Amino acid sequence: MALRFEMLAKASACHARLGRVHTAHGSFDTPAFMPVATAGAMKGLTPSQVSGTGSQIILNNAFHLMLRPGAARVRSLGGCHEFMRWSGPILTDSGGYQAFSMSDIVKLDETGVEFRSFVDGAKVHMSPESSMQVQQDLGSDIAMAFDDCAPLGAPQPSRDRIREAHERTLRWLERCVKAHRSDTAQSLFGIVQGGSDLDLRRASVQGVCAHDLPGYAIGGVAVGESTQAIREVVAFTAPLLPADRPRYLMGVGYEWDIVDAVASGIDMFDCVLPTRNGRNGTCFTTIGPVRLKNAVHAQESAPIDSSCDCECCAGGFSRAYLRHLFMAGEMLGPILASLHNIRHFQRLLLDIRSAIREDTWLGLETRWPCLAAGRIGARHQQEPDS
Amino acid sequence: MALRFEMLAKASACHARLGRVHTAHGSFDTPAFMPVATAGAMKGLTPSQVSGTGSQIILNNAFHLMLRPGAARVRSLGGCHEFMRWSGPILTDSGGYQAFSMSDIVKLDETGVEFRSFVDGAKVHMSPESSMQVQQDLGSDIAMAFDDCAPLGAPQPSRDRIREAHERTLRWLERCVKAHRSDTAQSLFGIVQGGSDLDLRRASVQGVCAHDLPGYAIGGVAVGESTQAIREVVAFTAPLLPADRPRYLMGVGYEWDIVDAVASGIDMFDCVLPTRNGRNGTCFTTIGPVRLKNAVHAQESAPIDSSCDCECCAGGFSRAYLRHLFMAGEMLGPILASLHNIRHFQRLLLDIRSAIREDTWLGLETRWPCLAAGRIGARHQQEPDS
Repeated sequence: MALRFEMLAKASACHARLGRVHTAHGSFDTPAFMPVATAGAMKGLTPSQVSGTGSQIILNNAFHLMLRPGAARVRSLGGCHEFMRWSGPILTDSGGYQAFSMSDIVKLDETGVEFRSFVDGAKVHMSPESSMQVQQDLGSDIAMAFDDCAPLGAPQPSRDRIREAHERTLRWLERCVKAHRSDTAQSLFGIVQGGSDLDLRRASVQGVCAHDLPGYAIGGVAVGESTQAIREVVAFTAPLLPADRPRYLMGVGYEWDIVDAVASGIDMFDCVLPTRNGRNGTCFTTIGPVRLKNAVHAQESAPIDSSCDCECCAGGFSRAYLRHLFMAGEMLGPILASLHNIRHFQRLLLDIRSAIREDTWLGLETRWPCLAAGRIGARHQQEPDS
Repeated sequence: MALRFEMLAKASACHARLGRVHTAHGSFDTPAFMPVATAGAMKGLTPSQVSGTGSQIILNNAFHLMLRPGAARVRSLGGCHEFMRWSGPILTDSGGYQAFSMSDIVKLDETGVEFRSFVDGAKVHMSPESSMQVQQDLGSDIAMAFDDCAPLGAPQPSRDRIREAHERTLRWLERCVKAHRSDTAQSLFGIVQGGSDLDLRRASVQGVCAHDLPGYAIGGVAVGESTQAIREVVAFTAPLLPADRPRYLMGVGYEWDIVDAVASGIDMFDCVLPTRNGRNGTCFTTIGPVRLKNAVHAQESAPIDSSCDCECCAGGFSRAYLRHLFMAGEMLGPILASLHNIRHFQRLLLDIRSAIREDTWLGLETRWPCLAAGRIGARHQQEPDS
């Protein structure tokens, strides 16, 4: 039986929606932020620590787990929940994005993509059918369709390549839907592609939503384009998706990206920013980022964010101590910074949900100065590109 | 006010004692195992995780903290308890052992030892007086005397060098006692040296115990010599120390080393084995060590030790999952293995204490098959040396 999406409230000032998604492994509140446990582990954190950040659903990367230890092995060990001892909902990506962006691609054609394994260099072929099998073996609550995601970045893919990817994604979705076993508890989400081309996006929505699926995602954003470009695509595409299904914006993002996307009607997010930046000593705060390695923190007895209730800030760990951990190469630095950063995003999402429930959407901007600061910063960062 | 040592019971079969040490930061039960938080952090573990292993007192390395971030800085941040957010008792070593064993020594004379900092290569001079100042700045509950510890290993120090170290240790202890501020809550422990020479050990005990100190330690063991040599020195030296003060065997050791030393009347232990071996994927169990990276664990759904109640074993993490974490280079592998290993030692110490309380000392060997197996293994390991 697929998931059930319960709509609880809508903001009057924008398209933001409050809801709850019910799965075989429990429920999660939307809008939801899903931290990423790439290889079946949130880097440096135990499941109980992750749960303590308020995270209700996490993401596993099918690509990493199929290559090591192998999806069949995870299945024989009880599936991804039992494997990593996470009892709540898990979403798996299809493996496609990583196959396209992280691997030496040997061949890409209608059958699928062939690439070299980062574990042992072996040639691996992935197809819509094999991705469905991998995700069924993993036993996630939400499986993602296997799509053709032309990576952006330099060189930018041509308009023809983006159109080809969009059309192939639709053909592959047909095959995913056929291959996916609808008699399991796993729900299959379709993915809308189309790059920054709004006509292609509209066509992709029509093609993808022709399949009656329990949820839909917007893919191919936050892959190197500007914040403004992300916002335009999301604001255009999200309202086209069925209102009674959860909408998932893949791989996004910064606080302002998330708030803007929620305002456009997005319900689910995943991003590696909290853990990746945390490992490098960059922490998010209500008023903007803090770089813990900076010498200015060497004698600072204050926590990362005095308004934060995470295990690190509420636990009284000082910026001076955290800086010391990073300077000394102590694992505990990345651990505490990651815990804080995940909780930072979950606090933002908690506040987003209460702003929708109480219809006080505009108050978010004053409670989270990092939003305005980030938009200015993001605009500045884009200047060299514009 | 110095610590208070309360004696609660004695075994009839050996010299083992059950007690409790009361400090300004709370009490700990003896025999006690102190895990090592070298640079003010238990590698990869939060204080609450460490506390969850049943550890009541931990060790900080004065050597590491004086070089980075500096003892005065730790003091200005509230001392080592506040710095690392550990509210229980903390013992600091004097820094001498690391200065001798981990550094390029520039000069060693009666004033102290000059070495190069591993942080920035600067020349640093340590003396009995500066070690006392460093440990007072850190604010630990138990400070250790600054001793001359001639490192064993190849080449072995000569008998003359060991005698010189023993005699200098006594002269330095005089200076430590003078420099140590007895009006603080910190207790100073003296350290007995003398290598494997029992006459020197006896002379060292007499010289060190001429000072009325709240506790005494045996140093210069487990520095490369055989398990049998450790046992002989400890069995000889421990009973010579005052019965009404805690006795601390520095840097020991494996389970059988600890059990044998407790039987000789030792009350306190510290060792990096649980964390260091855990980081490398070697776990201790009731029946002996397990190397998690071995392929034999790839499909093993059992925990590291099914009799263990640690967060890892009781939490249901399988050997297969742990092996996966190590193969994938995930931090969570070392974290869970360290958590388990520390709990393994604390479970052993819990059982040691209850064996003394209930006077069932000999039952320990049957409940912990790793003891006999380890003694056999240790004997085998020594064969090349004999």
